[in-house]
Amino acid sequence: MCGIVGIVSTSNVNQLLYDALTVLQHRGQDAAGIVTFQDDRFYLRKDNGLVRDVFRTRHMRRLVGNVGIGHVRYPTAGSSSSAEAQPFYVNSPYGITLAHNGNLTNADDLSRDLFRTDLRHINTNSDSEVLLNVFAHELQKLGKLDPTKDEIFAAVSAVHQRCRGAYAVIAMVTGYGIVGFRDPNGIRPACYGVRETEEGTEYMIASESVALSAAGFKMVRDIAPGEAVYIETDGTLYTQQCAENPKLVPCIFEHVYFARPDSIIDKVSVYKARLRMGETLADKILKERPDHDIDVVMPIPDTSRTSALQMAHRLGVKFREGFIKNRYIGRTFIMPGQKMRKKSVRQKLNPIDLEFRGKNVMLVDDSIVRGTTCKEIVQMARDAGARNVYFASAAPPVRFPNVYGIDMPSASELIAHDRSIEDVRDQIGADWLIYQDLEDLVTCVSDVNPDIDGWECSVFDGSYITGDVDEAYLRKLEDLRKDESRFEAGDNADNGIIDLHNDED
Amino acid sequence: MCGIVGIVSTSNVNQLLYDALTVLQHRGQDAAGIVTFQDDRFYLRKDNGLVRDVFRTRHMRRLVGNVGIGHVRYPTAGSSSSAEAQPFYVNSPYGITLAHNGNLTNADDLSRDLFRTDLRHINTNSDSEVLLNVFAHELQKLGKLDPTKDEIFAAVSAVHQRCRGAYAVIAMVTGYGIVGFRDPNGIRPACYGVRETEEGTEYMIASESVALSAAGFKMVRDIAPGEAVYIETDGTLYTQQCAENPKLVPCIFEHVYFARPDSIIDKVSVYKARLRMGETLADKILKERPDHDIDVVMPIPDTSRTSALQMAHRLGVKFREGFIKNRYIGRTFIMPGQKMRKKSVRQKLNPIDLEFRGKNVMLVDDSIVRGTTCKEIVQMARDAGARNVYFASAAPPVRFPNVYGIDMPSASELIAHDRSIEDVRDQIGADWLIYQDLEDLVTCVSDVNPDIDGWECSVFDGSYITGDVDEAYLRKLEDLRKDESRFEAGDNADNGIIDLHNDED
Amino acid sequence: MCGIVGIVSTSNVNQLLYDALTVLQHRGQDAAGIVTFQDDRFYLRKDNGLVRDVFRTRHMRRLVGNVGIGHVRYPTAGSSSSAEAQPFYVNSPYGITLAHNGNLTNADDLSRDLFRTDLRHINTNSDSEVLLNVFAHELQKLGKLDPTKDEIFAAVSAVHQRCRGAYAVIAMVTGYGIVGFRDPNGIRPACYGVRETEEGTEYMIASESVALSAAGFKMVRDIAPGEAVYIETDGTLYTQQCAENPKLVPCIFEHVYFARPDSIIDKVSVYKARLRMGETLADKILKERPDHDIDVVMPIPDTSRTSALQMAHRLGVKFREGFIKNRYIGRTFIMPGQKMRKKSVRQKLNPIDLEFRGKNVMLVDDSIVRGTTCKEIVQMARDAGARNVYFASAAPPVRFPNVYGIDMPSASELIAHDRSIEDVRDQIGADWLIYQDLEDLVTCVSDVNPDIDGWECSVFDGSYITGDVDEAYLRKLEDLRKDESRFEAGDNADNGIIDLHNDED
Amino acid sequence: MCGIVGIVSTSNVNQLLYDALTVLQHRGQDAAGIVTFQDDRFYLRKDNGLVRDVFRTRHMRRLVGNVGIGHVRYPTAGSSSSAEAQPFYVNSPYGITLAHNGNLTNADDLSRDLFRTDLRHINTNSDSEVLLNVFAHELQKLGKLDPTKDEIFAAVSAVHQRCRGAYAVIAMVTGYGIVGFRDPNGIRPACYGVRETEEGTEYMIASESVALSAAGFKMVRDIAPGEAVYIETDGTLYTQQCAENPKLVPCIFEHVYFARPDSIIDKVSVYKARLRMGETLADKILKERPDHDIDVVMPIPDTSRTSALQMAHRLGVKFREGFIKNRYIGRTFIMPGQKMRKKSVRQKLNPIDLEFRGKNVMLVDDSIVRGTTCKEIVQMARDAGARNVYFASAAPPVRFPNVYGIDMPSASELIAHDRSIEDVRDQIGADWLIYQDLEDLVTCVSDVNPDIDGWECSVFDGSYITGDVDEAYLRKLEDLRKDESRFEAGDNADNGIIDLHNDED
Repeated sequence: MCGIVGIVSTSNVNQLLYDALTVLQHRGQDAAGIVTFQDDRFYLRKDNGLVRDVFRTRHMRRLVGNVGIGHVRYPTAGSSSSAEAQPFYVNSPYGITLAHNGNLTNADDLSRDLFRTDLRHINTNSDSEVLLNVFAHELQKLGKLDPTKDEIFAAVSAVHQRCRGAYAVIAMVTGYGIVGFRDPNGIRPACYGVRETEEGTEYMIASESVALSAAGFKMVRDIAPGEAVYIETDGTLYTQQCAENPKLVPCIFEHVYFARPDSIIDKVSVYKARLRMGETLADKILKERPDHDIDVVMPIPDTSRTSALQMAHRLGVKFREGFIKNRYIGRTFIMPGQKMRKKSVRQKLNPIDLEFRGKNVMLVDDSIVRGTTCKEIVQMARDAGARNVYFASAAPPVRFPNVYGIDMPSASELIAHDRSIEDVRDQIGADWLIYQDLEDLVTCVSDVNPDIDGWECSVFDGSYITGDVDEAYLRKLEDLRKDESRFEAGDNADNGIIDLHNDED
Repeated sequence: MCGIVGIVSTSNVNQLLYDALTVLQHRGQDAAGIVTFQDDRFYLRKDNGLVRDVFRTRHMRRLVGNVGIGHVRYPTAGSSSSAEAQPFYVNSPYGITLAHNGNLTNADDLSRDLFRTDLRHINTNSDSEVLLNVFAHELQKLGKLDPTKDEIFAAVSAVHQRCRGAYAVIAMVTGYGIVGFRDPNGIRPACYGVRETEEGTEYMIASESVALSAAGFKMVRDIAPGEAVYIETDGTLYTQQCAENPKLVPCIFEHVYFARPDSIIDKVSVYKARLRMGETLADKILKERPDHDIDVVMPIPDTSRTSALQMAHRLGVKFREGFIKNRYIGRTFIMPGQKMRKKSVRQKLNPIDLEFRGKNVMLVDDSIVRGTTCKEIVQMARDAGARNVYFASAAPPVRFPNVYGIDMPSASELIAHDRSIEDVRDQIGADWLIYQDLEDLVTCVSDVNPDIDGWECSVFDGSYITGDVDEAYLRKLEDLRKDESRFEAGDNADNGIIDLHNDED
Repeated sequence: MCGIVGIVSTSNVNQLLYDALTVLQHRGQDAAGIVTFQDDRFYLRKDNGLVRDVFRTRHMRRLVGNVGIGHVRYPTAGSSSSAEAQPFYVNSPYGITLAHNGNLTNADDLSRDLFRTDLRHINTNSDSEVLLNVFAHELQKLGKLDPTKDEIFAAVSAVHQRCRGAYAVIAMVTGYGIVGFRDPNGIRPACYGVRETEEGTEYMIASESVALSAAGFKMVRDIAPGEAVYIETDGTLYTQQCAENPKLVPCIFEHVYFARPDSIIDKVSVYKARLRMGETLADKILKERPDHDIDVVMPIPDTSRTSALQMAHRLGVKFREGFIKNRYIGRTFIMPGQKMRKKSVRQKLNPIDLEFRGKNVMLVDDSIVRGTTCKEIVQMARDAGARNVYFASAAPPVRFPNVYGIDMPSASELIAHDRSIEDVRDQIGADWLIYQDLEDLVTCVSDVNPDIDGWECSVFDGSYITGDVDEAYLRKLEDLRKDESRFEAGDNADNGIIDLHNDED
Repeated sequence: MCGIVGIVSTSNVNQLLYDALTVLQHRGQDAAGIVTFQDDRFYLRKDNGLVRDVFRTRHMRRLVGNVGIGHVRYPTAGSSSSAEAQPFYVNSPYGITLAHNGNLTNADDLSRDLFRTDLRHINTNSDSEVLLNVFAHELQKLGKLDPTKDEIFAAVSAVHQRCRGAYAVIAMVTGYGIVGFRDPNGIRPACYGVRETEEGTEYMIASESVALSAAGFKMVRDIAPGEAVYIETDGTLYTQQCAENPKLVPCIFEHVYFARPDSIIDKVSVYKARLRMGETLADKILKERPDHDIDVVMPIPDTSRTSALQMAHRLGVKFREGFIKNRYIGRTFIMPGQKMRKKSVRQKLNPIDLEFRGKNVMLVDDSIVRGTTCKEIVQMARDAGARNVYFASAAPPVRFPNVYGIDMPSASELIAHDRSIEDVRDQIGADWLIYQDLEDLVTCVSDVNPDIDGWECSVFDGSYITGDVDEAYLRKLEDLRKDESRFEAGDNADNGIIDLHNDED
C-alpha cells in the first residue's frame, strides 16, 4: 500500500506536500518522495525512510515551485531499494513524474510491450515505472507541443485500456499541471479538495480525506472510478470520466485495517464502519453464545480499538486496554558470530496483568493474517493470568492473497488458508475464536453510498474483480515471495512482528 | 525527565540495554547513550536522537561486554547538545560512568565546591556531570585500589549528604560493577529485577518496571529511598541503606502523566491509579453538576485514555475516541525569506466530526500546563460541531514549576498560575472546566503502599520537599528559561505542540 | 574540462572504472559518476565530490555488470549541483547513459528544438543532457528494436550534423554496448585500448592514454575526429568515420596545462611537448636578453616543472624548487558575524627563503590566466629576499575565453585581455615578464603527427574553429558568468587560489 | 608520527589551528582534532580522517575561544580508532587536554602505576593518554587552586622524570593557558613563534616552523630539549628548562623523510640537508664508480626530488622526472566472493617511457624500508625500456625498528634487516644499489648548529638513546605488530603502497 498526494498551489508547495505525507505516513513507512516544478525544471527528492528522515532542510530548500506531487511507499515484495522510491520520472515527453498506489496485474506484459513498441527501457521491478511509461507513451503518441486537458484525458483513457489491476495515480506534467485518476473499478481510494486563499484557488488530490482536512482543504469529492482530475498550473481544474464501463468496487480492507479512522472514503466513514464491525461482531457472539462468560473486552492496539469499544458496549461488558503498545520499537542487531533472533511481540505489546488475572478475556483484533502474532498474544494473556482467552477478528478469515496493492503474505502463509476456524483457533491457542462474517462486514460499510457497486473482498472470498488473476498468476506471485524471503534475514527483517503495519489513531 | 538502565549479565548486554532504552523511550526522546565495559576498557556511544537513530550496527558491534548502563534524555532547559548526552564519564578514580534521572537543586554550589576542593573541571551545564564528580570525588577520597561494596556504599552516603534535589542514578565503575541509588526522598523511581540463565544470575536496574518485564526479568522490588544496590561484575548483589533519614515521597506526576501505565512504581500500578483518577473525577462531576448534560466522554490521546474510559463508565455516559492522533509528526521548515510558522495542533490531532456534531462533549486530558494546546483543542471540538465543550483535567491545576527533573515551563507560563479556575476556563474557551482535587489525586495513588510517607506534589501545591527551593532559586530558574527561549526559534522549536511529550500506550 | 571512460570487460567493471577515474581525476575534481549494466538493468552512482568520496563499498557492490562508463566533472559555470553530475540518463529509447567532455556551443538552440520536435524535457543547464537527448532522439527515429552498429553510427552522424562545439563522448546503450566518439574537429581527446584476458578481449575508451596504461590496457590508437568506436557487450568492436569533413584540430591547452604529462594525445607526448616549451622559451630569453642575469630557474609547482627544468638546462642556469606546495588545502570558514576572507596563496605555496636571498630568480608557470596568483607569488619571492623577480609563461598570453569545455574566466577577467605585455608585467609586479610565442608553442607540439591539421588555440588567438562563436555568444557567456559569480561567496568560494586546478605529476 | 600545534591568540583560534593542521597534515593523515576553550568550557572536535574532512562548518562554529591546541595523527600500530584521536582529555585537575607527538617506551609501566597510585583509568592503548594522566597527576599532587607557571613547570619536570621515550607535547589547562615541551633528548621537534596584532601579542607552538610561517608568525626559536614553554591566556609567555641533563639528539629521520623541506628544525634547514644528501651520495657514487654510465637521474616523487636534483647536478648527469605521481589514489573494494587484491604501485606511479628507453637510469628514493615498492618500481623502469636500473637511497640501510614515534615495520619486515647490500640489491632487482653512509648523512645535517649533541639514528644503527630499549621490548613490539596485521586486510589495507606516507612538496 502507498499514499499519494498532489497539489497545485499559489505559493511553494513543499511544506504542504511534506505535511500531507506525514498524515498519510500510515500508508507507507518504507520510502518517501516529493517532486515539484518551477520554471520548467522539476526538483526531486526521494529516499528510503520515514518522511521526517528523508527530507532535511537542504532538500526542502531545493524543492521550489507551486506545483508538486508526493508519495509514501509501503514495503512490497520486490521493491525495496531507494532507486524504487517514488515519484518516478521520464523526460520524454514533457518531463513526467508519477506517484502510484496499487498494483498492476499485467505489469510484465506491459513492460515487454513498452520495450517492443516504444523502445522504452524499464529499469526497476516496480509496476509504477511501467504505469508511468504507459502514460508517457500514450501522451507522446498524441504528439502535441502544448498538451491540453484533452490530450491528458485521452492518455488516461489509453492507460485504462492497457492496464489491469488497481491504481490510484497522481502524475505531474512538468510545466503544465497535475492529473489524478483511479482505475475503472475504483479499488484504491483518491479524493480531492479545494482551499481558497487571497492569491487564488488551490487544489489538493490525495489518497485519503484526512490529508485534505489536516491541511485546511475542503473535501470536494472522491475521484470516481475511471475518472481523471486535471489541474493546470494556474489552478484551473477539469474532470472527465476516462473509462468505458466504470464500476465502484472499492477495497474493503481499507476499512478493516488500512485507512485512518478519521478518513471518509467513497462517502463511507472508516470510523463508523469500524464501530459497526464491533456491533455486528457482538451480535454474532450473542447469537453463537447467548450465555457467554466474557468478563472483559480488550483491543489489540491500535486499529481494533474502535470495534472493540463498540463490541463491549453492545455486549454490556467491561472494556479495558489490557495491552500497552510500545511506540518505540528498535532493531535486533546481529553481532558477529550470532544468529538472527526473532523479535518477540513482547517488545511491542505489554500486558497489564491485573486486567487479566482470573478473567475471561475477549481479545479483539482487526484481522488475522499469518496468525503468529495472535498466538503470542494469546499466550501473553494466559501468562498474565487470564482464565479463558477468547479471540475475535473484526474481519472474516483472510484466505487469499491480495493482488491490488496490499502487501499480504502468499496463500500458504495465511493461517486461515485451507484451515477450518477450529483449526485456526487451535493454532493460535485460543479457547474460542470468532470471525466476522463477510456479509456482515459488507453490511458495515455499505448503507451510506448507493453508488458503490460492490466491494473488493478478494482476500476473503478469492474473487478478483479484474478478471485476469488466475492460478498461474498467483503461483508466480507465490514463487516471487519465496525468492524474496531468502533475503529477508537482513537488517530490516524485524519489521514484521505485527502482521501489517499501521499506527492509525 | 530521563530514563536509566543498568545490567550485569552473563553475555553481551548491548542488545538488552538497547531494548530497555526503547521501552523507556517515553521518558526521553532527546538523546540516548550506552556504555559497556570489557577487560578494563569501557565502550561508549551517545548522541542526540531516538534510540533507534543513535545506535547503528557499527556502534553496537563496538559496545562489547557483559556489564553496562544506558540513558535516554528528556530535553531539559540548558542541556540539549550532544555533548550533554549521558552517560557521563570521568577517568579518575577507576573510570566511572553515570546516568541520572532527576535534578540537583544545589548543582551550582556543588560545581564550585568541586573545583575548589578537588580541582575537578565541569565542562557542561548538566547537573549529572556534577553528580558524577561528587560521587567520583567521594570514592577517590577513600583511595582504595580495589573498591568493595563498602567503599561504594560510603560514597553513595556522601553523595546523599552533599546533593540536594531528586536523583535516581545508575553508575558503572569500570572493572568492578554497577551501582544504582535513589535520593533520600525517593522522588524519582528506580527498581531492580533478576533473571536466571544457564550461565548464571543476571540483574537489571531500571527507571520503570516495564523495562524489566519486557526483557524477561522478574521484578525484585523498588530501590528504597536513600538505598543503594551494588552489583559486582560476577553477579553478586548487595544492597544498603545509605541515607540517614530516608522518607518515601515519590513524584505524583509520574502517575499523572509521565510513567507508562503498565509500570508499577513503589508498588502502585500507574494504570490503576489512572483508572481511579477517572472515578474520582466522575464523582466530582456528579457532585458539582448532578444534572450534567454530557453526551459523550472523549480522551485527548494518549495518556488520558485510561482515566477517561473509567470516568465515562462511572458517569454512565458514552466513551468515544473523537480525536485521532497523527503518529508521524514532521517538522516545519523555514524557507529563505520566511518566518517561523507555528505548527498547529491540527497536525497532531484530527477530530472525527460525526462524534461531535450537536453533542455536549466532555474532553479529558491528564493535566493542563501551558493551556495553549487545550485552547486549540476546544476550538477544534467546536469547529467539528460540538454544542458544548467541557474539559476535565485528571490532575489539579499546575501552578508551580518543577525542580525535580520534569521539564515544566516557568511559573509565569503556566496557565493556572495566579489564575482562578474560571479564568483558566475562559482562557481555553471551554464551557465548563473541571479539575481533579489534589486530595482526590493523592487518594488515587495512595491506598496500596503503606510505606509511602507522602507525595511530591510541588507543581500543584508549591511545597518543595527538599527544603532548599526558595524564591531566589525559582527566580533564577525563570531567568534561565527566558535566556533559553531566545534560542528557541530554531529547527527544533516545533516540538512543543503538545504540552509534554509522552506516547505511552 | 572533464574525464570520461568506458569499458567492455569480461568481468565486473566497477573497480576498473573507479581506478580509471582516479587516474583521470586531474580532469575534474567536482563530481564523479559510474553507470554499469547487467541483465538489462543499469546501476548508477554519481554525486559531487572526489572519486574516493563518491564511491563507498555499498555503492560499489551495487555497480554490477561487465559493461559501464564513468565520468569526472570539472566545475564549470552553471553546472555545479549533484543533479548535474554525469553520466546522464534517458529511458527512451533502450535506456541510454552518456558521459561527455567538452562544450556544445549551440546547446540552447538544440534544447529548444528537442522540446519542440521530440517533446524531450531537459531538466538541467548541462549541455551534456542536451547532447544525450540529441543522440537518443536520433536513435529513436531509427526505431529499431535491436540496434546494430549501423544504427549507432547513423545516430552519431546525426549528432555531428546537429551539434556544434567540442565533445568527446562515451555513451552506453543498456543491453547492447558502449560507443565513444569525438567531434569532427577532434578538439577534445579520446583514445581506446585493448587487454587480452583468459576470458576474452576487453576494451577501454578514455580521455587520456594514462587511464589505459595504468589499468594494463594497451593503447590501440586515438579516436579520429568525427569517428565513432562501438563495442558490443560481447566484446566485438567496430569503428566508423561518422563526420563529413573531419579535421584534426586538437586543443593545445591540453598540452599547456590540462593533460597529465605521461599521456600521449593524438600521438603527441604531453611530457615531451612541455620539455620543448622550456627549450623554446629559453631560446626566446637568450634572444631577447643574451646577457641575462638569471641566477636560478624555479617552477611554480606542479605543471610547469617539466618546462622549467628544461629551460634551466638550456640556459645553463641552476634549477631549484623554491616553492613548496602544500598538498592539503583546507577551507576558510565563515564564522557568525565574520566576512569571507580570501585565502592567500601562501596557504598553498611556501617559499624556501635561502633559495631566493639575493638572487635573480626566474619563475616559470604554465600560463597566466587571471594573474592574481602570479602577483602574490612575485611578492612572496620578493619577501623571501629575491633581488629581481622574473616571470616566464610557458604559454602565450591568454586573451580570449574558452568555449570548448575549459572553464576559463570571461575575457574581462583575463589579465592579458586588452593589455600589453608590459602592462601585465607591471600588474603582476615582475621585473621582467616573458611569454612563449604562439608559433613556438605550436612548434613544440607539432612535428610528430602529420595528421594534425591545426591546433585549437582560441584562448590565445581568438579564432574559434567551429565558426559559430560570435560577439553575441561571447557576450552571453560573459553575462552568465557574472550571474554565477553572485553566488560564489559560499563554502566553495576558496577553490580558486591557483588559476586553474591540476595536480598532474 | 604526528603533528601538534597550540595557539594563544587575541581572537578566535579555530581557523588558525585548522590552517596550521593542514600545513602539518604530512605528519599524520589518519585523524585530526582541535580543542579550544572559552569561559571555562572547552570545546572539542576530533575524528578519523583528513583535516578537511573532520572539520565542517558546524564543528568550527562550536570551537570558540582564543586559546586552543590541535593534533594530526599518523596511523600507528594499535591506535587507529576515532576514540584514540587526539587531543585527549581529563577533567581532573582543572580540565586538561593534551596533544602528543612521539612514543613513550615505558607506557605500560606508567599505565599500571597510574592506576595503582592515583586510581586513574586509562581507556585506550594510546601512550598519549598515559602521558596526559602523568602530567595531570603531577599537577594534581601540587593541589593549587590557581596553578601558576611554577606548578606547570614542576609538573613538566615530574613528567620528564617518569616518562621515557620521545615526546613533543602541547597541553592546555582549561582556563589558564597552554604549555609545550620536548623530551630531555629533544628527539621530536617543536618550536614557537610570535605575531603582533593590534589587539596584542599572539603565540604559536608547533611541530614544524612551516606552520608558523604559513600563518604569518615569526619563528622565535626551537624549544630546547627538556624545556617547557608556558603561555597564559592573556598572552604572557614563560620558558624554563625542566630536565636535569638535557641533550639535543634530534631524530635524523625528520630530515630524511618526515619533515617538510621548507621547515627548519633545530636550526637545520630540511631542504638544505636534502640537497647535501644528494651531494654526498653523488660523491660516494663517483668514488665507488668513477666511470659510471648513468644517463639520467630520476627521483621517486616526491621526497627525494631535492636530493636527486642535486645529485644529478654534482654528477653532471641529466635530471628527469620519469615517474609521474598519481595524486588521487582510490581504494580497492572487496566485492562479495572476491579476495583482497593488492594495489599495485602502478596506480600511484606511472613511468614516462621515453625517458627510460635504452638508458641507464639512476632512481633516487629517500630511503628503503620494506623494499616491496622499490622492487615494483625497478620492474616498472625495466618494462619502460631502461637498459640498466640503478637505485640510490638518500638514507643508509634501515635495519632497526623505530620506537620514538615513527611507525616503522618491525625488524623482520625491513628488507635491510640481516641482509647485505648485495642481497637487498638482488631482492629489489636493481643492477646497482647504493646507500648513503651514515656518517655522510650525519654530516649533511650537522654543520649548522653546534648545540646539537648527536642524532637519533636508531633505525640505522640500532642504538636507542633512552637506554631502556632492550631485546624484550623489541620482541613485544614485534608481537604486537603481528597481532595488528591480522586485522589489516580491511578497507584501509591499501594505504601502504609507498613505504611511508608523505607528500611534502
